[in-house]
Amino acid sequence: MSTGFFPVEKIAYEGPESTNPLAFRHYNPDEVVMGKRLEDHLRFAIAYWHSFAWPGGDPFGGQTFERPWFGDEMAKARLKADVAFEMFTALQAPFYCFHDADVRPEMGNFADNTKALNEIVDYFAKKQEETGMKLLWGTANLFTHRRFMAGASTNPDPEVFAFSAATIKTCMDATMRLGGQNYVLWGGREGYETLLNTDLAQEDAQMGRMLNMVVEYKHKIGFKGDILVEPKPQEPSKHQYDYDVATVYGFLKRHGLENEVKMNIEQGHAILAGHSFEHEIATAAALGIFGSIDMNRNDYQSGWDTDQFPNNVPEVAMAYYHILKAGGFGNGGTNFDAKLRRQSLDPEDLLIAHIGGMDVCARGLKAAAAVIEDGTYDSFVADRYADWKGELGQKILSGGYTLEELADYVETSGVNPEPRSGKQEYLENLWNRFV
Amino acid sequence: MSTGFFPVEKIAYEGPESTNPLAFRHYNPDEVVMGKRLEDHLRFAIAYWHSFAWPGGDPFGGQTFERPWFGDEMAKARLKADVAFEMFTALQAPFYCFHDADVRPEMGNFADNTKALNEIVDYFAKKQEETGMKLLWGTANLFTHRRFMAGASTNPDPEVFAFSAATIKTCMDATMRLGGQNYVLWGGREGYETLLNTDLAQEDAQMGRMLNMVVEYKHKIGFKGDILVEPKPQEPSKHQYDYDVATVYGFLKRHGLENEVKMNIEQGHAILAGHSFEHEIATAAALGIFGSIDMNRNDYQSGWDTDQFPNNVPEVAMAYYHILKAGGFGNGGTNFDAKLRRQSLDPEDLLIAHIGGMDVCARGLKAAAAVIEDGTYDSFVADRYADWKGELGQKILSGGYTLEELADYVETSGVNPEPRSGKQEYLENLWNRFV
Amino acid sequence: MSTGFFPVEKIAYEGPESTNPLAFRHYNPDEVVMGKRLEDHLRFAIAYWHSFAWPGGDPFGGQTFERPWFGDEMAKARLKADVAFEMFTALQAPFYCFHDADVRPEMGNFADNTKALNEIVDYFAKKQEETGMKLLWGTANLFTHRRFMAGASTNPDPEVFAFSAATIKTCMDATMRLGGQNYVLWGGREGYETLLNTDLAQEDAQMGRMLNMVVEYKHKIGFKGDILVEPKPQEPSKHQYDYDVATVYGFLKRHGLENEVKMNIEQGHAILAGHSFEHEIATAAALGIFGSIDMNRNDYQSGWDTDQFPNNVPEVAMAYYHILKAGGFGNGGTNFDAKLRRQSLDPEDLLIAHIGGMDVCARGLKAAAAVIEDGTYDSFVADRYADWKGELGQKILSGGYTLEELADYVETSGVNPEPRSGKQEYLENLWNRFV
Amino acid sequence: MSTGFFPVEKIAYEGPESTNPLAFRHYNPDEVVMGKRLEDHLRFAIAYWHSFAWPGGDPFGGQTFERPWFGDEMAKARLKADVAFEMFTALQAPFYCFHDADVRPEMGNFADNTKALNEIVDYFAKKQEETGMKLLWGTANLFTHRRFMAGASTNPDPEVFAFSAATIKTCMDATMRLGGQNYVLWGGREGYETLLNTDLAQEDAQMGRMLNMVVEYKHKIGFKGDILVEPKPQEPSKHQYDYDVATVYGFLKRHGLENEVKMNIEQGHAILAGHSFEHEIATAAALGIFGSIDMNRNDYQSGWDTDQFPNNVPEVAMAYYHILKAGGFGNGGTNFDAKLRRQSLDPEDLLIAHIGGMDVCARGLKAAAAVIEDGTYDSFVADRYADWKGELGQKILSGGYTLEELADYVETSGVNPEPRSGKQEYLENLWNRFV
Repeated sequence: MSTGFFPVEKIAYEGPESTNPLAFRHYNPDEVVMGKRLEDHLRFAIAYWHSFAWPGGDPFGGQTFERPWFGDEMAKARLKADVAFEMFTALQAPFYCFHDADVRPEMGNFADNTKALNEIVDYFAKKQEETGMKLLWGTANLFTHRRFMAGASTNPDPEVFAFSAATIKTCMDATMRLGGQNYVLWGGREGYETLLNTDLAQEDAQMGRMLNMVVEYKHKIGFKGDILVEPKPQEPSKHQYDYDVATVYGFLKRHGLENEVKMNIEQGHAILAGHSFEHEIATAAALGIFGSIDMNRNDYQSGWDTDQFPNNVPEVAMAYYHILKAGGFGNGGTNFDAKLRRQSLDPEDLLIAHIGGMDVCARGLKAAAAVIEDGTYDSFVADRYADWKGELGQKILSGGYTLEELADYVETSGVNPEPRSGKQEYLENLWNRFV
Repeated sequence: MSTGFFPVEKIAYEGPESTNPLAFRHYNPDEVVMGKRLEDHLRFAIAYWHSFAWPGGDPFGGQTFERPWFGDEMAKARLKADVAFEMFTALQAPFYCFHDADVRPEMGNFADNTKALNEIVDYFAKKQEETGMKLLWGTANLFTHRRFMAGASTNPDPEVFAFSAATIKTCMDATMRLGGQNYVLWGGREGYETLLNTDLAQEDAQMGRMLNMVVEYKHKIGFKGDILVEPKPQEPSKHQYDYDVATVYGFLKRHGLENEVKMNIEQGHAILAGHSFEHEIATAAALGIFGSIDMNRNDYQSGWDTDQFPNNVPEVAMAYYHILKAGGFGNGGTNFDAKLRRQSLDPEDLLIAHIGGMDVCARGLKAAAAVIEDGTYDSFVADRYADWKGELGQKILSGGYTLEELADYVETSGVNPEPRSGKQEYLENLWNRFV
Repeated sequence: MSTGFFPVEKIAYEGPESTNPLAFRHYNPDEVVMGKRLEDHLRFAIAYWHSFAWPGGDPFGGQTFERPWFGDEMAKARLKADVAFEMFTALQAPFYCFHDADVRPEMGNFADNTKALNEIVDYFAKKQEETGMKLLWGTANLFTHRRFMAGASTNPDPEVFAFSAATIKTCMDATMRLGGQNYVLWGGREGYETLLNTDLAQEDAQMGRMLNMVVEYKHKIGFKGDILVEPKPQEPSKHQYDYDVATVYGFLKRHGLENEVKMNIEQGHAILAGHSFEHEIATAAALGIFGSIDMNRNDYQSGWDTDQFPNNVPEVAMAYYHILKAGGFGNGGTNFDAKLRRQSLDPEDLLIAHIGGMDVCARGLKAAAAVIEDGTYDSFVADRYADWKGELGQKILSGGYTLEELADYVETSGVNPEPRSGKQEYLENLWNRFV
Repeated sequence: MSTGFFPVEKIAYEGPESTNPLAFRHYNPDEVVMGKRLEDHLRFAIAYWHSFAWPGGDPFGGQTFERPWFGDEMAKARLKADVAFEMFTALQAPFYCFHDADVRPEMGNFADNTKALNEIVDYFAKKQEETGMKLLWGTANLFTHRRFMAGASTNPDPEVFAFSAATIKTCMDATMRLGGQNYVLWGGREGYETLLNTDLAQEDAQMGRMLNMVVEYKHKIGFKGDILVEPKPQEPSKHQYDYDVATVYGFLKRHGLENEVKMNIEQGHAILAGHSFEHEIATAAALGIFGSIDMNRNDYQSGWDTDQFPNNVPEVAMAYYHILKAGGFGNGGTNFDAKLRRQSLDPEDLLIAHIGGMDVCARGLKAAAAVIEDGTYDSFVADRYADWKGELGQKILSGGYTLEELADYVETSGVNPEPRSGKQEYLENLWNRFV
């Protein structure tokens, strides 16, 4: 029986000509692209926190949303779950994601929080069975409560480390039980507010130990999914240790984890770190640690994390191009870690925002696939580096030259290379044929 | 015999009350701080390029400086050297730094460039002997000439890689011959202008091979100095691979070089990457790869590399604090990779700018030393993490707990930690006692 | 009778050598600088909201402060006032500032809010009499409550305009009654979240009408203070109409208000708008609309409003230099619109933060005064423009030349001006003699 | 007779399915949209400077382009003109734009520069007649030569003001003679490198006088076009006085010029100022000062002016929407103040870059027209403000209420407005139906 929160129960695919705001125009789950259904390419997930737990506040204003499920009681947590699964179902999203704190009331201590979490996990398990919805990933909220204000694993107080470890364990257990395909760590408080009170080496050792414990526990319980770290450069902290993909890679190498942990990359976080989204994805792919994405943009004119739904098809196409070239998602998927603007008060706004995001992603992925199927672009890039397949290039890369030998070669042969056009505008135009 | 370019031959220390713009007010080379002379702490170096080779252009304007040594001839290169060593001497700077392209005319091909470089290196060797000046580091300019426009080691053309390798060899040889204490690599074109025409994994392999060749050659010729990489996030490239200290650390680990290569950290580049200068220094120190600094600031309101002389003592003090805590400079030093504003036309402006920078650094280092000698601050930070020296902390860090065991501990002991004040304002006030 | 919240009742001036964190080291209210007491120069004010009403939340975390006065009841509002006036007294701050929403409970409608406000205003009046504290300015909070989410005066709903006008009236009345020296308007929601749903010309007309009504009411009730607008470029809105000083000037001219309204300039807002603080102050002074300042900085590495206490003396000195040159504060003053870091939990942190800020301001103002009394700097700037006092300059400025006449003059006289050094480094060094 | 520089003589419209990189896919000059030919809507102009005078340098690298017309001789200036008009013709661009310094050799003094300019203007006049090309606007380069390094009209030396005035006069004469439709002023050096050596009020008076002289001269010679100011926040200067549209509006009001001068708005400059392009256009339209656009984007990850060709259709559509709503271009047009990437060496790259830009603009304008013709969007915005057409709204706007009367109304009527959804996501999705 429906809660009656939403005006419709099902969002249908009606095609590009539809003017119905409550229909898909581009996302047809069953459309086959490059031999795979769109649903299986995109692997959409809805984020529990922004859509169901966030009250609409900002640093200068309080709650704007008035939802019947707001409040710290189990009955409201169940009502929230009912509405959430109605939305997952309406959108045909095969996946969702959650933090412990999104789904259970805050009980103030570990034992009661764990008990409440387990109850709601039972409820989710039943809901999953009824609806066919699946869990893309679970995670622990180690940043909202004041006990984490100075860090979770990187707290100067080892008791907070212990509390965090315990919380992660319960969330990994919950994720395992619900068949979650990944487990995510986002270190919102793993960083510093001021370097003045911070010992970087000490905090690095703490964080390295925690991630190793997580990986050990994953293997112990036989969790088959991926452990994902989500980079972010700052906010809430002035500096966060998981700054960007390249930084996290160095951390993983330092702690021997580069084959155990992958990246969950968010467009908004890439922007905050001074990168394009496609840069972060391509970097992770080149380093062999690409995992999953959070498909939510930042406003280019704002210096904080705005978590908006994607709406620019050319940008989204570039992201999916690099995902497709990396072999597509394995366990990962497209999570909307996006929130409504706080002025979007109507229940239908929740549906409309996700419909728009899903349509934009569908257009982006189809464009990326078209670029690949056309082949002109990939050939251009391959040709640009073709000389590295030749004798000189291969000998250099395989260690066949010393610095002196190359100097001899240059001097003897009078090497004086002429530059070649980089053809950036040609490539931009080529892409614009497809987006 | 003096060239007569500068109005004075010697900048003397006259003490804080002096109003002479051509005197030091804070930098007394022989002043002893924490048991060491200021000169030996600060190890100042003057950058050849900005002071003697840069014509004063910017993206919207041409040459403003009119120097008698401008022009691509050997005689002018020697005049330039004469004036440069006059300035080094006047400032009592014990060190200088150079790229090959700063000191020799551009001859258009490798053989003639090498010959010209070697001639000027002979000239420098004689000058060093006459003046007692020393070389902090040498480096190769692999970014100005159009042949490098698409990268040096990361060029799609292996012949450019070869040309770059040959050039680096001649610059390492020159550095060795002049007793240089470090060799620096700054990859201004190692990055991309557009990801659209770029193969990240291929370029990473190329760059890794080049750096390994450099290290191999260092050992072969018995160079005792450090190999330093200078991080920068962007400019001239849209993205540069040596983005920041944490990124370069990952690169070094990937290519097995983390014990062979250290960092040359620039304040301006730190700012462009979204970090404070002290963050980059403290990060390098924590990772064991701190080497040297470029002490030149960016304007906080400009989004490009402004290379200005330092002038904010509180900021500079923070940087030297982390350097002193890391044991001070080994082979490294304080290089002014700073240029005059293009409107600062007078010969004396070159002296004035360096005097101001050296005084600011002297004040900063003395303040940092006072913070350390006072001890209150260091004790505060140590106390903040004191619990990690206790039983729980040590057992966690040494791997004595699994995730489950910590969860058991939390549940059984009812761990529910109370947060403690981070005392940021107290620490800021404490620092303001010393700066 | 003291509430006992703070560990001390009075912060004394102990001089620069003091190591007591609960003493002033530089702020001696009675010290005479340029013929005026420091207290009368600086006119410090404490902001009610950040220190007493803010719970310590950020976009990723909840309340960290636990204050006995938190809660929406009149008794708690009175306890809050007791503690606040204890702090004002301890710090010898002659002034404070408030919004209606900081000082009264939220009652949910206009009539009850007004009644609650008036009650607390009575209480403040008594407190002021007892302690000698004064009101620098009052203001209305037209941004926190959800009714204002789409703007106050610029709301698409004229009823929200009416509600806002009514609220402003009650706050102006309260300010008048308490002898406030200014009335401030900060338009946190006067802007847009998306241009897509916004009619700029319509909203400009609404905002212009509101400000005219405010000025009319000021004159009607005989309020002798200044009406101040506080510019900010963004946050919470994506774009705010009062972007920066130059933008507000244009708005005032458009609505005929440039002689009626002045600026309250905040360092953090200046930074967000891409300006230095001194730029905004100097601009307002040049336009004849300088009023007052909010002396709280942003973190240069963060893209949002961090509202931190000032701690960099050289920067603060520059700000006070331009204030002194503009004739000092009239009705304005130095308000700390600064909040503790959310990890600074201890009651003493509130005192420590303000002590540090006040000491930094005292050092800054004294340095600025020393620059002016020395005179070298002011003479340099005057000399730089001296030719504009000559015949050619005066004739140009007074309209004595047409474009053609100047062209004739240039051609006939062969005018071909040589550039002169801008001496930036010389001036930076000169300033460093005083800070 | 062709110079043979370009591989083709004419770029034809071949339709969206074409894969020919040297053809238009979307820009068909004769296509009629909203009752007007695309050519007449878009009014494309090619910028002489970037395409023909820029050598490909950047702050870290020298010339990359090798063009047969580079060099300071009249014969080369004529060859440059031949190639330029070949390109204008090939692209069917009806317009071009130039600075004096782009088209003539630098002769080192005013008289010879004027003579050289007039010669080349004669040559252009003939070329225009032969090809049918027209001049969108002319302008004076008052920023490249070292004499302007400290400002043109805002220079501390009145002789530089005089030299600048004389130069503007010759450029206005040239523009008039060539039938130019506008005259543009961009104040690249009208600002400061450091506030330390700057008198803001003095420089404002100088700049105000210059602009008044320009307007007086326009009327004197009967120039029918518009005088346009081009805002930019910084670069090359640290701060530029024409910061953004709102700032220039205030300047115009201050100097009585708001009905005489309009804006030439550049996307890249808008981005540098922290605004979206559409914001700046909509602001100018709301203020009644919209004139023309420079359609070149900045890279969102770079903090300097990258002057790239547009390639993002959704962004461009938004800009043209606001232009169409403002009544379209009058005398203005779409100028590509865009430069090739310095690695784009091939002659065909010049064509390809412009083809891409023109196609993107054509798609953008057609999408904007479709939004308008559909009407749903415009109705939504009008409805959002509909209550301001009602009794309360009209009475407020017409000055029918005082603050007190509105307070009475609110109290008496118990006004307590409920917020309404801002529908941002709905509007974003709606736009995505058209782009």
